Amino acid sequence: MRPAHRVGPQLPGTTEPAERADAARNRRRLLDAARELVREHGVDALTMDALAKRAGVGKGTVFRRFGSRTGLMYALLDHSETLAQEAFIFGPPPLGPGAAPVDRLIAFGQARLLDIEVEGELHRAAELGSPERHYSSQPYRVLKTHVAMLLREADTPGDSGLSADALLGVLAAGLVLHQLRTLGYTREQIASNWEALVRRVAGPAAQ
Amino acid sequence: MRPAHRVGPQLPGTTEPAERADAARNRRRLLDAARELVREHGVDALTMDALAKRAGVGKGTVFRRFGSRTGLMYALLDHSETLAQEAFIFGPPPLGPGAAPVDRLIAFGQARLLDIEVEGELHRAAELGSPERHYSSQPYRVLKTHVAMLLREADTPGDSGLSADALLGVLAAGLVLHQLRTLGYTREQIASNWEALVRRVAGPAAQ
Repeated sequence: MRPAHRVGPQLPGTTEPAERADAARNRRRLLDAARELVREHGVDALTMDALAKRAGVGKGTVFRRFGSRTGLMYALLDHSETLAQEAFIFGPPPLGPGAAPVDRLIAFGQARLLDIEVEGELHRAAELGSPERHYSSQPYRVLKTHVAMLLREADTPGDSGLSADALLGVLAAGLVLHQLRTLGYTREQIASNWEALVRRVAGPAAQ
Repeated sequence: MRPAHRVGPQLPGTTEPAERADAARNRRRLLDAARELVREHGVDALTMDALAKRAGVGKGTVFRRFGSRTGLMYALLDHSETLAQEAFIFGPPPLGPGAAPVDRLIAFGQARLLDIEVEGELHRAAELGSPERHYSSQPYRVLKTHVAMLLREADTPGDSGLSADALLGVLAAGLVLHQLRTLGYTREQIASNWEALVRRVAGPAAQ
């Protein structure tokens, strides 16, 4: 499975134009700067102006690249999803391949909760609108494919697709932000509940 | 715990004006007719005109009561939530009191899935908009209180509030409608997965 929404790997035997590789590198550099801004100062601090200053480029470059602040937010969410996908598909264990499926599921939830805590508004924005569009979106389907695969590897009984939907619901940004901000849970409490849930759902029947 | 959104019980020592009791009865009769219309012909068939005909009253009465079709839809959702609450708080087992907590949880999900199948659009509409508003709403909090109580009665380890959120996520109307309509699952498949999930999450650790 390849991460969705990436600039694809170069095909063997083709020559990538230098400008295109440059553009991709510049885009990635801008998005890394945007991600840092959000992690350090929250999503409100992410303006076209602030990003231009941070990345040391002209404001025109930022507008040319992303069109608007909304365009930038979606590009950043996309970038975060790509990094997350790279981590759980190709990265080191326990998130990536090489650990037991239950341990990979636990690490997956922990990584997701950290992302939601720091980039929650972006995640939540992506979940707004039609549920149909959300559940049919490529990022959701990549997450679901991954979780369903780990559930099958762990010999979890029942339909792996439905069970993956069930587990992913626990990590929905809107729900997690409600638990963190309104109900006052800590991320550690939510992560520990995730671990207990995964052990019960995906672990061996006799515990 | 009292069902939310009900016309409250009469306080001892007060005299309820006859008009008010009449109005409540008429309202309930209109809502029962609206519910039948939706169950028989789907949510699109629910118009102010059709409801007036069905209930044998003038169109003016329906408009006076609900204001608009949107007002009617919200009143109907409210009515359905009230009936659902009555069933799981006061009704016969296994949904109501008197059965084992795990059996009550299983019956709760089955009843919810049936409601979503027949009144899904209404439920989904209620989940749209701000997640914060949804999770803080009285209907959601009543469901959560009920599920958390059953989880505690079943001696489920972990935080009962977080686990209740996790289980209720599986019954979110937007998700269930996606599973039914887009992914092609039957209600029986989803109900059977719910039962397996509840047994793993809330059942004894050694199964």
